[in-house]
Amino acid sequence: MRAAIFRDGQIVADTLPDPVPAAGQVLVKTLACGICGSDLHARKHAHRMVELSRHLSNGRRPMDLSRDVVFGHEFCCEVIDYGPSTQRKFKPGTRVCSVPGLLTATGPQSIGYSNDNVGGYAERMLLSEALMLEVPNGLPAEHAALTEPLAVGIHAVAKANVQGNEVPLVIGCGPVGLAVIAGLKLKGLHPIVAADYSPARRALAEKMGADVVIDPAKVLPFKTWAEHAQMTPEQKAARSPMQALLPALKPALVFECVGVPGVIQQIFEGAPRDARIVVVGVCMETDRSEPMLGIMKELNVQYVLGYTPAEFASSLHLLAEGKVEAAPLITGKVGIDGVAQAFTDLGNPERHTKILVEPWR
Amino acid sequence: MRAAIFRDGQIVADTLPDPVPAAGQVLVKTLACGICGSDLHARKHAHRMVELSRHLSNGRRPMDLSRDVVFGHEFCCEVIDYGPSTQRKFKPGTRVCSVPGLLTATGPQSIGYSNDNVGGYAERMLLSEALMLEVPNGLPAEHAALTEPLAVGIHAVAKANVQGNEVPLVIGCGPVGLAVIAGLKLKGLHPIVAADYSPARRALAEKMGADVVIDPAKVLPFKTWAEHAQMTPEQKAARSPMQALLPALKPALVFECVGVPGVIQQIFEGAPRDARIVVVGVCMETDRSEPMLGIMKELNVQYVLGYTPAEFASSLHLLAEGKVEAAPLITGKVGIDGVAQAFTDLGNPERHTKILVEPWR
Repeated sequence: MRAAIFRDGQIVADTLPDPVPAAGQVLVKTLACGICGSDLHARKHAHRMVELSRHLSNGRRPMDLSRDVVFGHEFCCEVIDYGPSTQRKFKPGTRVCSVPGLLTATGPQSIGYSNDNVGGYAERMLLSEALMLEVPNGLPAEHAALTEPLAVGIHAVAKANVQGNEVPLVIGCGPVGLAVIAGLKLKGLHPIVAADYSPARRALAEKMGADVVIDPAKVLPFKTWAEHAQMTPEQKAARSPMQALLPALKPALVFECVGVPGVIQQIFEGAPRDARIVVVGVCMETDRSEPMLGIMKELNVQYVLGYTPAEFASSLHLLAEGKVEAAPLITGKVGIDGVAQAFTDLGNPERHTKILVEPWR
Repeated sequence: MRAAIFRDGQIVADTLPDPVPAAGQVLVKTLACGICGSDLHARKHAHRMVELSRHLSNGRRPMDLSRDVVFGHEFCCEVIDYGPSTQRKFKPGTRVCSVPGLLTATGPQSIGYSNDNVGGYAERMLLSEALMLEVPNGLPAEHAALTEPLAVGIHAVAKANVQGNEVPLVIGCGPVGLAVIAGLKLKGLHPIVAADYSPARRALAEKMGADVVIDPAKVLPFKTWAEHAQMTPEQKAARSPMQALLPALKPALVFECVGVPGVIQQIFEGAPRDARIVVVGVCMETDRSEPMLGIMKELNVQYVLGYTPAEFASSLHLLAEGKVEAAPLITGKVGIDGVAQAFTDLGNPERHTKILVEPWR
């Protein structure tokens, strides 16, 4: 089969042997697979990623970068055939999604960052029957492939422990920030304030549910945020004398969805007292910060990653039931041969948000 | 009056005019005032502290380092006389404590880090009548002066949002760490695990309520912590299949009570998944960290500072009612002339934990 392979630091199109399903596994055809910012990171910082995985020692084998890896963990597939010890729960041709993990005899392993299991940038791949979910409601494969990035936003908002009185500020409106905005909208929080340098991304943020969008090149995000976070007269009146000494602002809930060094520090500088910061952007480099700013403002930082299987399943249903309209995120589609160029093209936020790989093209 | 003055980066003994109480203020005699780690920090990093205060722009005037400052914010005093517009609520001779803030016509200002209001390293100082608390139960002044550092620990534990099932690990057993241990003991959490390189500090940690003490030079704190954080068989059985893939550990609640660069990163490296980290140590320097470790483990970091007036009042009562026995923390007493040497002596954790200034000596 053909695949876009991460080999010697580059993405190359080549052929690989077809995968063979082991016990409990299913051979599937990849219908659509999103290119994730993490894949771009991984190409650039692969050694760092391996080092960090080793550090975690969570039982998953880290990638061996001297061997081929096929990325791709945001996929929608079609059932082809089953391996031994399966219940054949969906008939061949059924469209399915799955969290990007494979249950193996030696424990769960990654799909998409593994030498052993190819990801969705290949014509065919293996899934675990136990993790497969049927795509409901006739949701097209290209939309079902957005389940995974949406789940990241749903999870980040869940970890934010929303009380209902916060005014959120989303820093960065790439796929992660947009998914967070979708999650915040589902929680009913308003106004949702979002910041991005790109006009195209700001337009998408509005489509996904942002009420106020900011160009950080023109205005200070936290200044605009504060204008939209003023307490109501009732809230002001309910404060204690000590609280009344502080600015009359509703609680700040800030989502860091950029993932480059320095952004957390910028948030520390701009955030109001008692802000809660959810770090969703994946920064693989060493960062510097001023803990003293965090201390003096009593900030809270919640780092998040991934999602639970339940959040993943719920995200698939949100898309299938039209509760989240993620289609505007898709800005391009490529076949195997187009993946390398797509990695480059994704560097331009005006042009692209989410490019889908359709390996059958 | 005589005072130990922070002047040109040094602590010098000299005389200053007696303070004169303005409206709502009280002239008091300083009976005892603890030397705080923050004062040592402030002497070393005064310019940094000023810069950060400016940044916060919380209405308090930052220190002008070209002018005198008298440190000291952990004090117990005796009422001498009242200024205008006061209710004279305690008669002269009454022993009192107060949060280190002075209510002035231009808003609340600091006591202890201010050019305008002397702190407790002076024979006399001013307090606001509205903030003064009478020392109850005949608690000696030297113990009442420990109210402030105890309140720091009580507040840190309050901000940790304890659920009752956590196993705490206290990194650093200086006055802040010891106060945190006292706060954890009051919450009924067991075992309390605490780490410090100093045998004297470890002995104090045990006195304050630590159940397990660790010398980080000999064992890895998180390894020992994990030995004491194993789930019960019932807790293991109650996990979901996904949870069962992770180590069977009770939730980790880590208190950073050191306050030097690198410690937060060490905690990020050692902490288990989902750990909550409370940063109580005051690190005034720029720090570096690997956000990716926080992300991959979904860590939560709560920075804390100070305490509420209610926590301060409660701390005074905890001491007065013998619910916290803080007396072992006091390792020395000096007069005005001994303050400079005491700043040096506090560098040796084997010799000293808390030195009290008794300006009347």
